[in-house]
Amino acid sequence: MNGLEIFFAECVKAVDAELDKIIPSAESEPNRLPAAMRWSVLAGGKRFRPALCLAVGEMFGASRKSLLKTAAAMEMIHTYSLIHDDLPAMDDDDWRRGRATCHKKFGEATAILAGDVLQTLAFQTLAEDANLSAEVRVKLIAELAKSAAKMVDGQQMDLEAEGKSIRIEELETIHRNKTGAMICGAARSGAIIAGANEAELNAVTNYAESLGLLFQITDDLLDVTQTTEVLGKTAGKDAKAEKATYVSLYGLDEARKLAEAAHARACGELKNIEKETNLLRELAGFILERRK
Amino acid sequence: MNGLEIFFAECVKAVDAELDKIIPSAESEPNRLPAAMRWSVLAGGKRFRPALCLAVGEMFGASRKSLLKTAAAMEMIHTYSLIHDDLPAMDDDDWRRGRATCHKKFGEATAILAGDVLQTLAFQTLAEDANLSAEVRVKLIAELAKSAAKMVDGQQMDLEAEGKSIRIEELETIHRNKTGAMICGAARSGAIIAGANEAELNAVTNYAESLGLLFQITDDLLDVTQTTEVLGKTAGKDAKAEKATYVSLYGLDEARKLAEAAHARACGELKNIEKETNLLRELAGFILERRK
Repeated sequence: MNGLEIFFAECVKAVDAELDKIIPSAESEPNRLPAAMRWSVLAGGKRFRPALCLAVGEMFGASRKSLLKTAAAMEMIHTYSLIHDDLPAMDDDDWRRGRATCHKKFGEATAILAGDVLQTLAFQTLAEDANLSAEVRVKLIAELAKSAAKMVDGQQMDLEAEGKSIRIEELETIHRNKTGAMICGAARSGAIIAGANEAELNAVTNYAESLGLLFQITDDLLDVTQTTEVLGKTAGKDAKAEKATYVSLYGLDEARKLAEAAHARACGELKNIEKETNLLRELAGFILERRK
Repeated sequence: MNGLEIFFAECVKAVDAELDKIIPSAESEPNRLPAAMRWSVLAGGKRFRPALCLAVGEMFGASRKSLLKTAAAMEMIHTYSLIHDDLPAMDDDDWRRGRATCHKKFGEATAILAGDVLQTLAFQTLAEDANLSAEVRVKLIAELAKSAAKMVDGQQMDLEAEGKSIRIEELETIHRNKTGAMICGAARSGAIIAGANEAELNAVTNYAESLGLLFQITDDLLDVTQTTEVLGKTAGKDAKAEKATYVSLYGLDEARKLAEAAHARACGELKNIEKETNLLRELAGFILERRK
C-alpha cells in the first residue's frame, strides 16, 4: 500500500470504530431504529468526507482524537442524506454501498426515521465533544448545518431539474450544493478544529471546492462507465432518470478534461498553504483516478 | 382575555416573527424548499412548546430575547416531525394545521427535504444565537438533540405497535418519548437559558413530564370527541389506524380521570419551585380543558 492507501485504511478503521461507539447497539432499544441506522452507516462506505476532515486537520496540527467525532458526524449527515435520497419518492433506489437500501430492508417509514435520527445524532455528537471547547463546537455545528442545508438545497434543485434541459451554470450550482458543500464543510471543519487562520481557511475552501467538483464529475463518469457490482450502487441511473450530468452535457471526453482541470485547480491551490500538503495532493489524484 | 390568553397571544406573535426571520423567504432560493417550509411552519400552530419554553425561562428570570431563538428552534423540530409523520409511508395524512399537508401541497420528495432542512436550521439557529454564551448553546443543542431523538424513537415504537395489542406500560413509554420528550425539552431549555440550579431543573423536568402526559391524554380524547374542522387535522384517525390510545385502552371516562391526575401531579410539582408559578399552573389547566 502507498501512503494514501495506508491513510485511507486507518481512517476507515478509526471512523468506523467511532461510529460504532456513537450509534446505539441494535439491542439497546426495543425498536428497529438502531438496526436500521447501523445497516446504512456501517456498510463499508469509503468515508471520503471523514478522511478529508482528518487529512486537513492533521496537516494543520490537530490531533486525530480532536477530529474523530466531527469526522463521524460528517459521515452520519452524509448517510442520512443517502437514506432519504434512495427513498421511492426521491431516487427510488434498491442498492447502496453493496447492499439493499435502508427502505428495502426496513420499510419506508423506518428508513425516513432512521435518516431523521442520524441527522439529530450528528449534531448531538458535535455538541457533546469534550475534546473541543464550546466555542469550537458551536462553530463546527454552524459549519456542518450550513453545509447540510446546502446539500438539501442541491437535492431539491436536482429533483426540480429532472427531465428538463438545464444550462451548464445550473448544473454547476446544483453540484456545488448537493455534493460540494459537504466536501467543503468536511475540509473546513478539520481546519477549524486545528485553529487555522483566515488565509489558510480560504485556501482550504478553494481546494475543497475544486475537489468537490472533481468528485462530482468523476461520479458522473463512473455512473456511465462502471457496473452496479463495482460501484455498490445502481449504475446508469442518471441517464435513466434523464438527469443532466457532466457526461450528458459535455460527453465523456470533454467531461474527463473538466475533471483534469478541476484536479489541477485543487492542486494549484495547495501552493498557498505553507504546510506539508502531499497527502491532500495525493487525495485529489486518487479522486481523479478512482474506479468506484 | 385572561392572563394566560394574553401570554399565548404574545408568544405566537413573537415566535412567528422569529420564525419568519429565520426561514429563508420563498423568493430567496431558486427552488420550492423555502415555500414548503413556510407552508408548514407558518400555518398558525398553537406554539405550545415555544410558549412553555418562554414561560419557564421567564419565570426563572431570563429575558424573552434570550429565549426566542431556542423557542423557534423547538417549533422547527416539532414541525419537521409533523411533516414527516404525515407522509404516505407514515400516517398518510392530508390535513394539518387547517390546511393541506406539506406533501399534498408540494409532493413527497419536497416534503421529505423540507422536513430535513427544518431540522438542520433548528440546530444552526441554536449554534448561531449570539444572545447566549457558547457553553449555554452547546448545552441547548445537546438537550434539543436528545429530546428530538427520543421523539423519533417514540414514533418508531408507535409505528411498530400499530394493529398490535399493547400493554399500558408500552403505551406510556411510547408517549413519554413521542410527545413528552420535546415538551420536557422545551421546558428544560427555558430553565437552562435562565441558569436554573439542579433542584429547579429537576422540578421543571417533573412538571413537564406530567404536562406531556396530560397533553397526550387530551390529544387522544380530542381525536375521539372533536371534528376535523375544529382540530385542523384529521379527527378519528387513531381508531382508524387501530392505534392503542388512552381512550382505546381505558375508555373515555377513565382517560379523563387520568388526565385530571396528570394535571394534579404537574401542579403539585410547582410547589417545589420558589418562584411565581401561576402561569405554569394556568398552562396546565389550559391543557386539561383544551377543546382543540
